[in-house]
Amino acid sequence: MSPMDEPGTQTTPLDAPGRSPRTDQAAQDAVEGDGVQHMKWWGWGREGVAFTHQDKPRLRDFVLENVGVDLDTPGRPALDFDELDVPASRAPQGLLDALGAAAGAGHVRTTPMERVVHTYGKSLRDLLRLRAGDLPRTPDVVVYPGDEDAIRGVVDAVADAGAVLIAFGGGSNISGSLHPPADEERPVVSLDLGRMNRVLEVDEESRLARVQAGVLGPDLEDQLGARGWTMGHVPDSFTHSTLGGWIATRSSGAQSDKYGDIADLTRGLRVVQPGRLVVTRPVPSEATGPSVREMLIGSEGRLGVITEAWVQVHRLPQNREIIGYFFPSFEAGVAAMRDISASDASTVLTRVSDARETAFSFATSKASKGLSHLVSSGLKEYLRRRGWDLDAICLSFVGFEGDADAVKDDKSRVKKIVKAHGGIVVGKGPGTLYDQKKFDTPYIRDYILDRGALADVSDTAAAWSGLLPLYRHVREQADAAFARVGVKGWVMCHLSHSYHGGACLYFTFAFRQTSETPLVEYDVVKGAIQQAFVDAGGTLSHHHAVGTEHARWLAEDISPAGEAMIGELLGAVDPDRRLNPGAIVG
Amino acid sequence: MSPMDEPGTQTTPLDAPGRSPRTDQAAQDAVEGDGVQHMKWWGWGREGVAFTHQDKPRLRDFVLENVGVDLDTPGRPALDFDELDVPASRAPQGLLDALGAAAGAGHVRTTPMERVVHTYGKSLRDLLRLRAGDLPRTPDVVVYPGDEDAIRGVVDAVADAGAVLIAFGGGSNISGSLHPPADEERPVVSLDLGRMNRVLEVDEESRLARVQAGVLGPDLEDQLGARGWTMGHVPDSFTHSTLGGWIATRSSGAQSDKYGDIADLTRGLRVVQPGRLVVTRPVPSEATGPSVREMLIGSEGRLGVITEAWVQVHRLPQNREIIGYFFPSFEAGVAAMRDISASDASTVLTRVSDARETAFSFATSKASKGLSHLVSSGLKEYLRRRGWDLDAICLSFVGFEGDADAVKDDKSRVKKIVKAHGGIVVGKGPGTLYDQKKFDTPYIRDYILDRGALADVSDTAAAWSGLLPLYRHVREQADAAFARVGVKGWVMCHLSHSYHGGACLYFTFAFRQTSETPLVEYDVVKGAIQQAFVDAGGTLSHHHAVGTEHARWLAEDISPAGEAMIGELLGAVDPDRRLNPGAIVG
Repeated sequence: MSPMDEPGTQTTPLDAPGRSPRTDQAAQDAVEGDGVQHMKWWGWGREGVAFTHQDKPRLRDFVLENVGVDLDTPGRPALDFDELDVPASRAPQGLLDALGAAAGAGHVRTTPMERVVHTYGKSLRDLLRLRAGDLPRTPDVVVYPGDEDAIRGVVDAVADAGAVLIAFGGGSNISGSLHPPADEERPVVSLDLGRMNRVLEVDEESRLARVQAGVLGPDLEDQLGARGWTMGHVPDSFTHSTLGGWIATRSSGAQSDKYGDIADLTRGLRVVQPGRLVVTRPVPSEATGPSVREMLIGSEGRLGVITEAWVQVHRLPQNREIIGYFFPSFEAGVAAMRDISASDASTVLTRVSDARETAFSFATSKASKGLSHLVSSGLKEYLRRRGWDLDAICLSFVGFEGDADAVKDDKSRVKKIVKAHGGIVVGKGPGTLYDQKKFDTPYIRDYILDRGALADVSDTAAAWSGLLPLYRHVREQADAAFARVGVKGWVMCHLSHSYHGGACLYFTFAFRQTSETPLVEYDVVKGAIQQAFVDAGGTLSHHHAVGTEHARWLAEDISPAGEAMIGELLGAVDPDRRLNPGAIVG
Repeated sequence: MSPMDEPGTQTTPLDAPGRSPRTDQAAQDAVEGDGVQHMKWWGWGREGVAFTHQDKPRLRDFVLENVGVDLDTPGRPALDFDELDVPASRAPQGLLDALGAAAGAGHVRTTPMERVVHTYGKSLRDLLRLRAGDLPRTPDVVVYPGDEDAIRGVVDAVADAGAVLIAFGGGSNISGSLHPPADEERPVVSLDLGRMNRVLEVDEESRLARVQAGVLGPDLEDQLGARGWTMGHVPDSFTHSTLGGWIATRSSGAQSDKYGDIADLTRGLRVVQPGRLVVTRPVPSEATGPSVREMLIGSEGRLGVITEAWVQVHRLPQNREIIGYFFPSFEAGVAAMRDISASDASTVLTRVSDARETAFSFATSKASKGLSHLVSSGLKEYLRRRGWDLDAICLSFVGFEGDADAVKDDKSRVKKIVKAHGGIVVGKGPGTLYDQKKFDTPYIRDYILDRGALADVSDTAAAWSGLLPLYRHVREQADAAFARVGVKGWVMCHLSHSYHGGACLYFTFAFRQTSETPLVEYDVVKGAIQQAFVDAGGTLSHHHAVGTEHARWLAEDISPAGEAMIGELLGAVDPDRRLNPGAIVG
């Protein structure tokens, strides 16, 4: 859930009064080589951008009450990059020379900062390990090839040298898909796609764009937007994730109701494997099964390096509105989303928070003009008179795009369904805020982590009839896990990404760190939630991939034989386990 | 294109004045065992249903002029089933006993008719081979298991016996996916899913149905319709194809604009492999890639036997209209479909025929009240005054479903786009006819084959910008192929299945048989059209699978490395090549 602000406020870099000085120089160092900007080595986002609770008057009390952590506590002392014990590079000179020959010598880098930046993604586990100085294995060399030929050269050089290759996009992965196995004896090469950041072609008649895999979300949308187009794919990681990363993890964006998941958006692919290049055509549909395109989507670097893709693009919408609604219960909100998705209304996004996430949204509101205003006004009294439990209010957003008539008609259809489920229309203000703030969430995790709280997210998808039982089961299991850990914990949820047959449930949880072994506590809670997903008929992740984090639930999700099939595919295509070994199946 | 009739006529069994008596007894024999109805062993459809030109006054002249074949010529003499030289079954008694133990002894059959019915699909090649008595290899035994446990028993018995298994649904395949390799030395078991024909469950809240794989289209829709639901999947083969077959061939139905391709419709799958069972959950979307569900879709029996699936279902629509339109050229019609698919209009189907297919539709019209009426009326004069070339008219259908307002609005949006491309609205009449007659087409092929003409279909899909260049290239290459064969040939086309980024083009071709080696001539023409597809950027088939018929274009379609990946997957999952060896990749 995003921190809410007043209507009309632009998304700006968040002030960070407590920001640590530990990283500026180091981050610069990482950036120098190739103009490829990386996130902070120790957390989410760019240097100089951070969350703060100082301008959110209710947040301290809220977190204190529900998580037992006082945000006014000064952040814990910073770990300096120089304090890290970074293992030396094991890359043999012959490999470095071969990589230089393929990508240009200036694009082959072995500094500790480069190798640390490319060791982990940004999961809570990754951050905790970094903070603990836990770096058993880093890539031995980072290479920044500038085109597909260079990538083919790099991949072949890796194969010839008996080394291992891990493709790296924005580094935003939170499923443990990026780190080399701790016991990997062979040289490890991180292939950073950051220089592959161009929209190469827009086929306007076909509404398809050919795009290099290393482009970050905002850069992609800027390039498309300049020509009047949008891809419309906006996962929460949007600002720091890449097209290739989206494809490699079977990503889904908040606007999937209209634009589709990445598997729908991706039509043609080019993927480099040792000694060969896989090319699928940008045809809209095909009977050539088993679909090679679908094998490559979600392959997390284990089937090669995605160099470019043909993706669907849409004309920038004539009109766009995100409307806010209140429901008297999560049950009512979920039922409304279910009915909307079967109705004649076209929506861009559908989302409803449970009462807890709604309360959190109110608590992150800056001023009395924001969301909090809505419920401190006459609306409160109105709802009370209608018999609403004000503590059970659930905030919902539905997005609309299209010509003026279509937006009007779709809004009217949705309003009717919302009312049938006891909900009310709140209006455009909250929706505008949601749209502006939707990429800020990950900063909050780092901020509270510095102040003693462990927070993370877990997402699943299930059939409509299974969503509420799953929701209740996760709540119970999370509470039981908090009890086992002996902490006051918090778990909240929203439904997003409606499909014909079901939807995604996205859980955020937080609890106070009480020991010096936070990963043990984290595993108890995260494990309980994931187990609840698969026990209740959900999938292990709706859009965050398998990686290493979720691999232990794979057989329960897609059956042991299904897991075996994935292993058989990977083993047959990459028998020497050169390509990101360890991810998905061991 | 369907043979058109008067509005309001129900789809009824077509009279067949020249119907051969050769098959009744044999067909009965095939059916006896298990109440599973099969198509004619020698052609499309059920005994007693056939096409005739007698009630279509213009058709004889049309075919004579364009294909050089006189439909008044009596059909060629029938081949009696007893004349076939059916190889003896090679099934060892131990295998037969094991199959009987698994499926029940009464469900294991080895009669010549059973084995011939299960040897081929219904491609032109299949029919020509049967008519030539070309039966180098048939299955040695046909087994009809009644539930998933029995299927597991059969599959394991096959593996234990060192035999080979070919799953069989409706037998409508036209890509050569069903016959055993001629040189297969091992015993071959055909597993007929025909007894697995029930809708097991409808999850009304999730809009998902759990359905056994062997159910035929009409039976499935009857069972769903009785509860107020529809799957909406209507390929041309609908009446004689099964859910499992649709999934195994990555099928698409005419209403894919609304309901999606089979890959969209299929959410959960159960697939039996030797010694194990793959189960994927009916979740609406998932990040567990590479997607096992997608590996199984289009696997043509090479990855196991699909026993049941969770598929999306929709409430029967409140309103349904298929509207006819005329365009002054195919180019205008294609451009209109392209614009419709990017508009705010929701459509169920979009289709436009080229001028030739439109002329064929007029020629198959029964009476002056039908389609022919439309162009013999004042409309003709009106169009001429507007400068239309009447020989270039292109007939189009667009379908709408939804509440009354939605249908009205969508029709209005489409009308505006049609007009912008110079088209006119013809009205409901032709659309109603299309809806009623859409499954009759395959009967025509058998009828004219009996009278000396070879006819077949080939379909592709491409990006919007590539469709017209591809269309022209196919026309040229088909004409060149006809010239090489030395015959007057006919090729016609329609666009159907609109997607965001492209559409399907569906070609039908026919030419007079001039030699006793029709397959040689057929290969020249069919090969030229398929080659034109891949040369012009299309896929080898939009919805008819790879099989053996299209396998030689697989590497050109998805690249040699892509073809290799499919081979690697199949080889790893089924290293002993027990499951339908030969299909997709050799």
